[in-house]
Amino acid sequence: VGEIFDGRIGVIGSGALGAFYGARLLRSGRDVHFLMRRDYEHVREHGLQVYSKDGDFHLRPPVYESVDELGRCDLVIIGLKTTDNAAIPELLAPICDAHTIVLTLQNGLGNEEAIASALERFGSGAEQVIGGVAFLCSNRTAPGVINHTDHGWLRIAEFRGEPRLRTHAIAAAFEKAGISCEVHRRVVAIRWEKLVWNVPFNGLGVAANRADSAIIMGDDTLFRCARGLMEEVVAAARADDVEVTPSHVERMIDYTRSMGAYKSSMQIDYENGRPLEIEAIIGEPMRRAQCAGIPVPRMEMLYGVIRRSV
Amino acid sequence: VGEIFDGRIGVIGSGALGAFYGARLLRSGRDVHFLMRRDYEHVREHGLQVYSKDGDFHLRPPVYESVDELGRCDLVIIGLKTTDNAAIPELLAPICDAHTIVLTLQNGLGNEEAIASALERFGSGAEQVIGGVAFLCSNRTAPGVINHTDHGWLRIAEFRGEPRLRTHAIAAAFEKAGISCEVHRRVVAIRWEKLVWNVPFNGLGVAANRADSAIIMGDDTLFRCARGLMEEVVAAARADDVEVTPSHVERMIDYTRSMGAYKSSMQIDYENGRPLEIEAIIGEPMRRAQCAGIPVPRMEMLYGVIRRSV
Repeated sequence: VGEIFDGRIGVIGSGALGAFYGARLLRSGRDVHFLMRRDYEHVREHGLQVYSKDGDFHLRPPVYESVDELGRCDLVIIGLKTTDNAAIPELLAPICDAHTIVLTLQNGLGNEEAIASALERFGSGAEQVIGGVAFLCSNRTAPGVINHTDHGWLRIAEFRGEPRLRTHAIAAAFEKAGISCEVHRRVVAIRWEKLVWNVPFNGLGVAANRADSAIIMGDDTLFRCARGLMEEVVAAARADDVEVTPSHVERMIDYTRSMGAYKSSMQIDYENGRPLEIEAIIGEPMRRAQCAGIPVPRMEMLYGVIRRSV
Repeated sequence: VGEIFDGRIGVIGSGALGAFYGARLLRSGRDVHFLMRRDYEHVREHGLQVYSKDGDFHLRPPVYESVDELGRCDLVIIGLKTTDNAAIPELLAPICDAHTIVLTLQNGLGNEEAIASALERFGSGAEQVIGGVAFLCSNRTAPGVINHTDHGWLRIAEFRGEPRLRTHAIAAAFEKAGISCEVHRRVVAIRWEKLVWNVPFNGLGVAANRADSAIIMGDDTLFRCARGLMEEVVAAARADDVEVTPSHVERMIDYTRSMGAYKSSMQIDYENGRPLEIEAIIGEPMRRAQCAGIPVPRMEMLYGVIRRSV
């Protein structure tokens, strides 16, 4: 412990999340390389501009248009939208070997599994996967421009087994970059805890005709639905042997009250006609509950309704 | 019994439902008078045209533009949309006295109560109210034109107390007009039984982005939601001491399978930008369940979501 991860880092999915964390790591001295799609030309010519509550900065990062150019990495940070997960095997193929660690900071459930399965071709797999949950408010406001408005801390955990030296070394790299990063013992635990907020506020944000957090908190029925959904997530987490405390639900409710009129990522995607992360945030949690015989009537309603909205 | 109601009948809300039943009663020799709004001019000049699976016919009915012109009735048949229920007191005032019977064929819960309260000014009230449930597929396709495509039978019951001679006399009038009309002992029972279909298929028809009955029956999650909603209605009915049999749920499922791609009235209203009967069909059943401490999570989700769609 105390060691800081010092290998070659590749960022896949350099949007509002990936580009933000990658830029902070790069600025703090890490060796970070970015795969970019739509912003490639702009960032190559003008660099990356981060406006942040923690201080604005500008960087000229190493940027690549394809994974073949990006080449082998010691650590891959995945910030892809989960709706692009089908591309993970081909994205990882040219940049991973048996020693590469893959850290996913994506939303919802099922991402570690998808990555582990893609890594099997290198003779590694689940043991090289680290899961992380980001509490970050940031947006890509223009090509090469990230606006970081609030929060930013991380929780990470090995997908299989206890935290290792490398887990702490990666956390230390984030900490050195000014990003608070807690190391946890079980990735499913931090994922389900985040779902306690994500399921109701992403789900109702789309299903209830673009209800932001203030609308949901201020409407008796919608608030009742949100609380009921939170309790269903707590119950569903037991399908993965995760015991979320009731106080976490109360904390999430207080936290949401403090946020004002906040739009969830799924709501913003919906308003912009982009694909919705329905499967990772609602579908997969719902199916795990159903397989374990845990009733999740409200999640089923959300899933049924939202799948018809896309 | 055997007697046929022979008083002066007024039809309030002469749309696809009211005009259809009124026209059938008129054709069979009853003394029926129609209050009409948007179709008044047309029907006064050209009469009422009914296209029906039971045979087409044309009538020139007595038609009125206001309740003052319509005048006192022995029986008022209410076919108003429940979203217009606030107008009931002023509509009934010039046409009712203490002896007038009011039969509501409207959707959902709470209509008999609204009418009973409006009748109190005449020194009558709940004892003059009869509730009815219509199983009718008909549309107003143009001014003065009704298209009756399927079904048409009625179930009626006194709002307070056991069936009386008058209940059977009214049913006999419908029967003589070729409309099958069952007399039941409890109006809440026939209303809750109809809600077993109306809540899921009207509700999901709007919430799940205009899902017709075939879409709902063909999607695993939506079908699960629909069945769950049916079971919630069965449970909620106990708030009114109504015991709906489980076989009724199965019958409704089979019935829906036989319908093909059917659009509920709320879905059609939604598609045409008209007010939705949310309170009568979902809100009031939900509140009765909540007051009785019966959990109705799916109904709450529907109510929360649909109220945001209007």
